[in-house]
Amino acid sequence: MNGIGKLIGVGVGPGDPELLTLKATRALGEADVIVHFAKIGNGSNARAIVAGHLKANVEELPLYYPVTTELPKEDAAYREAIAAFYDTSAACIAAKLDDGKTVAVISEGDPLFYGSYMHLHVRLAPRYVTEVIAGITAMSGCWSSIGAPIAQGDDVFTVLPGTLAENELERRLRDADAAVVMKIGRHLPKVRRALSETGRIGRAIYIERGTTENAVIMPLVDKLDDCAPYFAVVLVPGWEQRR
Amino acid sequence: MNGIGKLIGVGVGPGDPELLTLKATRALGEADVIVHFAKIGNGSNARAIVAGHLKANVEELPLYYPVTTELPKEDAAYREAIAAFYDTSAACIAAKLDDGKTVAVISEGDPLFYGSYMHLHVRLAPRYVTEVIAGITAMSGCWSSIGAPIAQGDDVFTVLPGTLAENELERRLRDADAAVVMKIGRHLPKVRRALSETGRIGRAIYIERGTTENAVIMPLVDKLDDCAPYFAVVLVPGWEQRR
Repeated sequence: MNGIGKLIGVGVGPGDPELLTLKATRALGEADVIVHFAKIGNGSNARAIVAGHLKANVEELPLYYPVTTELPKEDAAYREAIAAFYDTSAACIAAKLDDGKTVAVISEGDPLFYGSYMHLHVRLAPRYVTEVIAGITAMSGCWSSIGAPIAQGDDVFTVLPGTLAENELERRLRDADAAVVMKIGRHLPKVRRALSETGRIGRAIYIERGTTENAVIMPLVDKLDDCAPYFAVVLVPGWEQRR
Repeated sequence: MNGIGKLIGVGVGPGDPELLTLKATRALGEADVIVHFAKIGNGSNARAIVAGHLKANVEELPLYYPVTTELPKEDAAYREAIAAFYDTSAACIAAKLDDGKTVAVISEGDPLFYGSYMHLHVRLAPRYVTEVIAGITAMSGCWSSIGAPIAQGDDVFTVLPGTLAENELERRLRDADAAVVMKIGRHLPKVRRALSETGRIGRAIYIERGTTENAVIMPLVDKLDDCAPYFAVVLVPGWEQRR
């Protein structure tokens, strides 16, 4: 292992600051450097969640996604830009670690569950002492906030990105007892059609900004427009069928 | 709504007491009655996790599963006994709620994700003020503790109970980018065969008592015996394929 610093991937949960773990708050209070991902011009949700738990005058290192994130993901230029961004970000953090600092990378939800932190982890964990602190996932915060039992007993539970092709969404929704569809955004009309086609639309619940004061929660059948943020989720609880 | 009491389903996380949320510790400190599920003769993991966070002289209500849990789940006698147990348990809790008490039901992991709490929730939430506090799931605690990125990007992630038939396990493992197999116990040989048959055995990690001091963690190929507790899990990370 190089240096004497320590890397910590800190899960900060879905939005409600009270859903931070004791372990996360301790790590945040001890960290010398706080790293967060952000889009230029946007505030960071993760940074807002931890605001009350940082050392006074803690050093901060915001990592701004390259503007090319608007390019399609299949695009070679996008892939190169994003890989270069993670390489550069990892190098910046490595410099802090080589200085002996404890660096906390804050991550909405759980760091190793669809989180950007993973891209830093695979670059740095082989070389530095590293700890990952689990966080409450967005989906878990959502089903808890509305008191919806999601899966039980022998249920098969599946997480589907809304980016999947419509026939894939349909096939997989049909095959799951309980499901969560993530990354809704512009995929909402497709996700809605797939849920209708598979007879799941009546059970589907649409949630934006779950667990926060600005949460939007409704049966998906009651959502009449197609405007959804990328981080909206749709829950399809399995319990209902077999209570 | 009846009475003036409040029911709280409290997720206490996977085992490490530091993985309690701030919200859970606050609820535990305010509760008049603490309810936990247990098997006669066994200590409760959930009760051990929260030991440091209860009011002095708090009232406790342990709920002991009927001994018939050793019967096969398909058995009508089992189903009747377990339904009667949940009915009686809900009635006991309802009596406390009618007395105006705040009752916290502690639940390992996340209360609404394969948790016994759900059986009380569906019986009581329609009649009483109810709150559910999300908890870190066992699987999330496990992949974090070993620093294993589980799913990213457009991965499809699936949770499979080890109780599924072998051909179902195989079919679903083949169809998932990332998976977690829960409820291992006596199903370990079958789960191992399904992972081998689908070419996933090399990526599979076996974990008992994840995030606790007594955790057992190893590549599944290194586990030479067939002894596994019911709550052991097998992680099949998806990231590895496409780093």
